[in-house]
Amino acid sequence: MEIKVVRKVLDVNDTMARQNRKMFSDKRVFVLNLMSSPGSGKTSILEKTLSHIMPEITSAVIVGDICTSNDANRLARSGAPVVQINTDEFGGDCHLAAHVIENAAANLNLDEVDLLIVENVGNLVCPAEFDIGEDMRVVVLSVAEGEDKPVKYPLMFRVCDATLLNKIDLLPYLDYDKRAALKNILQIHPDMPIFETSAITEEGLTGWIDWLKSKINQKLN
Amino acid sequence: MEIKVVRKVLDVNDTMARQNRKMFSDKRVFVLNLMSSPGSGKTSILEKTLSHIMPEITSAVIVGDICTSNDANRLARSGAPVVQINTDEFGGDCHLAAHVIENAAANLNLDEVDLLIVENVGNLVCPAEFDIGEDMRVVVLSVAEGEDKPVKYPLMFRVCDATLLNKIDLLPYLDYDKRAALKNILQIHPDMPIFETSAITEEGLTGWIDWLKSKINQKLN
Repeated sequence: MEIKVVRKVLDVNDTMARQNRKMFSDKRVFVLNLMSSPGSGKTSILEKTLSHIMPEITSAVIVGDICTSNDANRLARSGAPVVQINTDEFGGDCHLAAHVIENAAANLNLDEVDLLIVENVGNLVCPAEFDIGEDMRVVVLSVAEGEDKPVKYPLMFRVCDATLLNKIDLLPYLDYDKRAALKNILQIHPDMPIFETSAITEEGLTGWIDWLKSKINQKLN
Repeated sequence: MEIKVVRKVLDVNDTMARQNRKMFSDKRVFVLNLMSSPGSGKTSILEKTLSHIMPEITSAVIVGDICTSNDANRLARSGAPVVQINTDEFGGDCHLAAHVIENAAANLNLDEVDLLIVENVGNLVCPAEFDIGEDMRVVVLSVAEGEDKPVKYPLMFRVCDATLLNKIDLLPYLDYDKRAALKNILQIHPDMPIFETSAITEEGLTGWIDWLKSKINQKLN
């Protein structure tokens, strides 16, 4: 019975996500849903991505956190409009649901936005289950988290369209088997694009941003 | 209405947790619930803790993961009996609930166990909401996750009895403000014991293990 309740919540969410997807399509907005564990470096990657992609591509951000507006404050420096969602206001939700995105997007002038990035709540489990009407899902995986996360949290890696293997500047200081990590990602999601990135050294950012731009252009042009 | 459903699930869980707590008390077992983000180093800390604490304190482990038995295989080398729970079998649950612990504990001979360690699913959000009948909750926070996690995920730090600030061997390679991290932990949970640890260099392990032993002895003697 518990499963039925969850199923119903997900069905309602899927309906809302379809409405969001149509709205974003009508407004010609490309939506990226960025997900990861807490502390994988999503916000730093976003800061760098925005600084490289703007003003060429007009961007806006919706940031989900249980508490604080730390990330919104950091991202606002990019000049992009930022909407902070605190899920603590509705029970400390561990993910962003489609109706929450709809409400947050109402605070943005979507006619002037080409790229909407949603920085989801730091959680490698629950956000993977909730379609928000996005065009693309990307998971950020810090090398400090170890090699086995893709096989331990397979749904996230199954539903995402690309992986950013992040914090690679730390590799010299970790006993990290990168080949095993890549193999684990591809075992769950064969042919998944993987970008090895560091927000600190900026290594790998060009490849990631060029790929993102090509996906945006595919939709909008 | 969604919140009501969640409330009911939590009420049922609390009832089951009370039953577990009585059972563990009757059997004179001390139960530690270890929680964290994915990849914070819970399993490595547990391996080291078991190697220092056994055979003096007879220990057993219940390991929760969505998928794989990687962690159980690693922990079994300690000689402690290990029960692996894969939440994928019941919908990919993002936490361990009290009834799941009851079922798992039925696979252990609790008469021969002084310390039962539950390694929860890697998730800094949901496990904090589910009492499993434990005596103590400890959160592991990797320094690679950044300084602000306690204020962004406050419930976890509010309900836990101690923090292991882990992977401190990485500090020389990170731009990490440890004072800010400690301040953030204490802002959420004043006077919380904090142990700075590294499973690799074993720094800080003695302080953590001595403290754990004292808590076990307080209950069992």
